[in-house]
Amino acid sequence: MNLQETIEDFGQRARKASRELAAYNTEAKNRALEAMADAVRDRAATILEANAKDIIAAEGNALPRAMIDRLRLDAKRLAGIERDIRNVAALPDPVGAIISQWERPNGLQISKVRVPIGVIGVIYESRPNVTSDAAILCTKTGNAVILRGGSESIHSNIAIADALRHGLRYARLREDAILLVPTTDREAVRIMAQMDRSIDMIVSRGGQALIEAVLAHARMPVIKHYQGVCHVYVDREADLGMAQEIVINAKCQRPGVCNALETLLVHRDVAEPFLQKCGAELLRRDVELRGDQHVRKIVGDAVKPASEADWTTEYLDLILSARVVESADAAIDHIEKYGSHHSDAIVTGNKATAEQFLHRVDSATVYWNASTRFTDGGEFGFGAEIGISTDKLHARGPMALEELTTYKYLIRGTGQIRR
Amino acid sequence: MNLQETIEDFGQRARKASRELAAYNTEAKNRALEAMADAVRDRAATILEANAKDIIAAEGNALPRAMIDRLRLDAKRLAGIERDIRNVAALPDPVGAIISQWERPNGLQISKVRVPIGVIGVIYESRPNVTSDAAILCTKTGNAVILRGGSESIHSNIAIADALRHGLRYARLREDAILLVPTTDREAVRIMAQMDRSIDMIVSRGGQALIEAVLAHARMPVIKHYQGVCHVYVDREADLGMAQEIVINAKCQRPGVCNALETLLVHRDVAEPFLQKCGAELLRRDVELRGDQHVRKIVGDAVKPASEADWTTEYLDLILSARVVESADAAIDHIEKYGSHHSDAIVTGNKATAEQFLHRVDSATVYWNASTRFTDGGEFGFGAEIGISTDKLHARGPMALEELTTYKYLIRGTGQIRR
Repeated sequence: MNLQETIEDFGQRARKASRELAAYNTEAKNRALEAMADAVRDRAATILEANAKDIIAAEGNALPRAMIDRLRLDAKRLAGIERDIRNVAALPDPVGAIISQWERPNGLQISKVRVPIGVIGVIYESRPNVTSDAAILCTKTGNAVILRGGSESIHSNIAIADALRHGLRYARLREDAILLVPTTDREAVRIMAQMDRSIDMIVSRGGQALIEAVLAHARMPVIKHYQGVCHVYVDREADLGMAQEIVINAKCQRPGVCNALETLLVHRDVAEPFLQKCGAELLRRDVELRGDQHVRKIVGDAVKPASEADWTTEYLDLILSARVVESADAAIDHIEKYGSHHSDAIVTGNKATAEQFLHRVDSATVYWNASTRFTDGGEFGFGAEIGISTDKLHARGPMALEELTTYKYLIRGTGQIRR
Repeated sequence: MNLQETIEDFGQRARKASRELAAYNTEAKNRALEAMADAVRDRAATILEANAKDIIAAEGNALPRAMIDRLRLDAKRLAGIERDIRNVAALPDPVGAIISQWERPNGLQISKVRVPIGVIGVIYESRPNVTSDAAILCTKTGNAVILRGGSESIHSNIAIADALRHGLRYARLREDAILLVPTTDREAVRIMAQMDRSIDMIVSRGGQALIEAVLAHARMPVIKHYQGVCHVYVDREADLGMAQEIVINAKCQRPGVCNALETLLVHRDVAEPFLQKCGAELLRRDVELRGDQHVRKIVGDAVKPASEADWTTEYLDLILSARVVESADAAIDHIEKYGSHHSDAIVTGNKATAEQFLHRVDSATVYWNASTRFTDGGEFGFGAEIGISTDKLHARGPMALEELTTYKYLIRGTGQIRR
């Protein structure tokens, strides 16, 4: 079989498996998850060996050290993967929940119930643990999954998927519920994106080129895990000490992630006292500042001039753009014009200003007096996460188990016909 | 401006209007809806005159009489449109509803609230009242809408949209919240489908060619209102009198709609008594029957042989395909293989068989002992309908006000930072 045939065959096998998986009860799915955790533990040596191949290739390709570090598995990280699987087994199963039900005047009983989506494609470029995370969340919710990971972790991904499939087989579930495309050919992305008869939804996590390749061809819904150009706005009525803590946390605690701060907006009435202190602290922490004239005047020549492009840039690094604004409205306008609708925060003591900001900023997550870093399935209490959707439909923000389900209507009657 | 520029300009104007509209409260939106109803009433003569042009063109193009009838407006139908607008004004507003809220151990208060989607594109081929239905449901939910109707109703659509915009203006809302593409050039569909920066979702109602044109280019979520290949399965434990009433109703009451019956499946144990009686009644009602060998043997030569293509065909006419099956499982397999996952029913007195069918048939709406004709926003009690989604995400089945909203997370803190 050529690549097209192989992947189309995956589609049919996954569809068949999804029908079976949808019929399993929570207990059967949890037993499979425990067997998958056991298999990851039992096959640790094989997985680490495969991972070593990826590391050697990455070093050969002179990938950045931070990327190689993210790629690397060791006994501790593998134990983390195993633990995550057991944690998902322990989470409540959203499938079967009755979202709402009502009776019509003609006696029809209508129930809106939560059901699996069917077959989910996951196209990603990231650490090997995403292979496991995505697969187990799909299994828990009764979905089959077709995984297409990045080339840099291909050996690790194959070894992990093999272990998970072994777990399914051991628990007597159809192993085709988890399929991994065993090639790094980007053509696979185009093929998957066009298989709307066998793939119901694609979750796409990766850089712009990957997401563009999916979007250009996709015929089914695509949930993008894309960039976060996140803002903190320090209002004239902010507690400046709290504001500084939030800004430092949002920028510095883990700058390489999508919910980290990229642009600081400060009300002009507090710009001088706030930026003098906070600017110095950011510089002390090796943050490169890029500001408008006003910011540069207050903080000094250590601040580079910000260009128009800076306002739309996700640095994912110790770089921060900063701007002084006239009002909360001007801050909202800036965020709507340049932001990516991911996570944005206001720091203020004024409840009315805060509520205006919360309601008018059209982002997945809007904060009042808290760091943007909390946009995360774990921090939300979801217990797991397949990604953070930057789309508005069907999932927005942290995406966990419920977001891997849809609904259908069950209608029970006694012979009703329409007049 | 050329077509591309015109439609892109629509996108920017709609985006701006959507930001304003999202901030209006229910009262302001309802006032605008009442003004829109008034405008439709006051401009009746202009709208009917425009409609007469469409009718003349349709007659010139020798469109089928049924289609011309659907296209035609008169005083009574226009009064119906006016009444529908006032009815939507009276419905509860889903925007602002708190879907769920919880507190995290660190004190963060997380609220998941219902918000407008933003800008919705509606691409359709149908009666002129869809122009009004789509526009008012979007206004009610705080969304701006870009409408692109079919060429056969272009004059009516322009006149109706003008009246609705007049209503918005009268109520001092931004009239760009309702924009109608004033051309029948199909290129407009391609342009809209690529405007993912200014259109958040497309609702697509129409034939296969139209939907294919949208899907081939779309970069944003598309909700399709596509075909319904609906089934009724008569189980061996069915009340055969009830089964016949349901089959006749589902096939004959209004055969030209998506929730009408297209394929009848009958358990072999009851095939003979059921098909003898029900088959005769269907023939008496001028229904053309296309059956497998078994059906033809029972009902006789009046039944044409069904081809493989019949099982996947949406006739939208007085034609019915019929098949005898070995079991409820075989019926489910047939539906999963050939159906369009729209509306499917089982008639049986056995609760266990019914529940199996309800849970295993992967359709938007699954019925036990009721006609498939109830898949409809009005019949569900939604009070309105923008279409019936044949997609699994973000809306499935009848689509009304709630389905024109999404959600965001509002998070209120007291200075929380991530450790």
